[in-house]
Amino acid sequence: MSGERLSLVNGQPVTEININDRDFNFGDGLFETIAVRDGQALLWAAHVRRLIEGARRLGIALPSETVLAREVQLLCGNAARAVLKIIIARGVRGQDKAPDGAAGPTRVLRRLPASDYPARYWRDGVCVRVCQRRLARDPQLAGIKHLCRLPQTMARAEWQDEFAEGLMLDDSGAVIEGTKSNLFIVANGKLQTPELSGAGVWGVARAWMMERAAATGLQVSVESISLEAVYAADEIFITNSLIGLWPVRELEGKAYSVGPVTKTLQATLADAFPVPRDL
Amino acid sequence: MSGERLSLVNGQPVTEININDRDFNFGDGLFETIAVRDGQALLWAAHVRRLIEGARRLGIALPSETVLAREVQLLCGNAARAVLKIIIARGVRGQDKAPDGAAGPTRVLRRLPASDYPARYWRDGVCVRVCQRRLARDPQLAGIKHLCRLPQTMARAEWQDEFAEGLMLDDSGAVIEGTKSNLFIVANGKLQTPELSGAGVWGVARAWMMERAAATGLQVSVESISLEAVYAADEIFITNSLIGLWPVRELEGKAYSVGPVTKTLQATLADAFPVPRDL
Repeated sequence: MSGERLSLVNGQPVTEININDRDFNFGDGLFETIAVRDGQALLWAAHVRRLIEGARRLGIALPSETVLAREVQLLCGNAARAVLKIIIARGVRGQDKAPDGAAGPTRVLRRLPASDYPARYWRDGVCVRVCQRRLARDPQLAGIKHLCRLPQTMARAEWQDEFAEGLMLDDSGAVIEGTKSNLFIVANGKLQTPELSGAGVWGVARAWMMERAAATGLQVSVESISLEAVYAADEIFITNSLIGLWPVRELEGKAYSVGPVTKTLQATLADAFPVPRDL
Repeated sequence: MSGERLSLVNGQPVTEININDRDFNFGDGLFETIAVRDGQALLWAAHVRRLIEGARRLGIALPSETVLAREVQLLCGNAARAVLKIIIARGVRGQDKAPDGAAGPTRVLRRLPASDYPARYWRDGVCVRVCQRRLARDPQLAGIKHLCRLPQTMARAEWQDEFAEGLMLDDSGAVIEGTKSNLFIVANGKLQTPELSGAGVWGVARAWMMERAAATGLQVSVESISLEAVYAADEIFITNSLIGLWPVRELEGKAYSVGPVTKTLQATLADAFPVPRDL
């Protein structure tokens, strides 16, 4: 198989899904968005771990990792750079919200073109806004990458292309994450990232960055972080599985420099993320 | 056209949707579930009003009511009894959560078999439980019938067939609604229903019932209602567009009788809801 956009639905190369799928009707499922480089799905084990936790919480029977890995190889084995999207939906059931029934889950694997962001986003940093849209605290859905993403969609609709990302607060005013990324701040030489027990997604890149930072001897903590603390920070950056790390150079008019902690961590990126070749 | 299950996607009779539809990827859309009797979509104007409010909140361009009404007639004009489901999704867009783009919304109209509940549900009432799963308060999504329904799906997974419905509380402990219905309680001869500014769906049947109750001279109020107030109530019933009104005869072991207020309101049902012929 080759081509820019390919999809497998339950192992079959199709581009449509059954209209009875509960995902389409109730957002009832999980997803992962994974960078592919030289035929390899990057940070694969961590993405699978998050899927397993999500499936446990939602009570969805996950296909075996062997099945997923075989289909990833089939779709992306020949891709130099691509984005792999996996959707695990509860599958085709009746109209009622009762999730029991005979049919198994629907698995969708999609190969999509790699994102094409300017190299300056990594080198000089990005402009970020603070979204008006708040995230509701819902501990049973916090952390996992489920498909009910209306709050993020509504937040993203607040701007056009003038910002690279928007930060979202929960309804108590704590900063949680971006619409598609996790946040880190550096204050007094220590690295901090918001705690996500009530809202947000446990980013695979976030976990990787925390491990990498600790390995370099940095003090790393997970905390409730106010917007004031973000503004007062010495350095800020955002992370996700597709971009790795982008420094933030401006947040609502406040300027930040790409500081030493950000630079140290960014130097380790090329191991695990498809950063631009000229970085 | 005839048959038990039929679907129109953007006016075409198909059973699949494009895998790029944002609904499938982010739960980005709205739905309505409408009772059909003798070729007519019941309470049509109220369902359209809720769609209009939902589309306004989510920034989705709604198809004209003329287009919708024509397709309803095409699908359901010959149906004695059926369920009409309408999904308005934001449509096919890119991978980013940015909702702007060229393609218009996807409209899906589905004709499904009428629900087949026992007549005793209307006559004698139903057994209801209290769900463990709580609803997060999210005022920007409260009221409208959007597609992100994981909390209701998780709540419904708490039981098999031993109950007809489960009540859901918000995270402050206020009773909000059932997984597929709205709640009314009668206390001291007055009718009360939970206020839904933070969570829940403005049921079309709920609005109809409030108007009808007021017209019969009953005092009707929208209030924050505790679980204790529900247990202490003289009568309880639940409503939705498909069932009309079911009395609750038991809630977590506490028994209720089908009282005079419930009976008065139930006597008006046949005008607007497909109640069983032998009721």
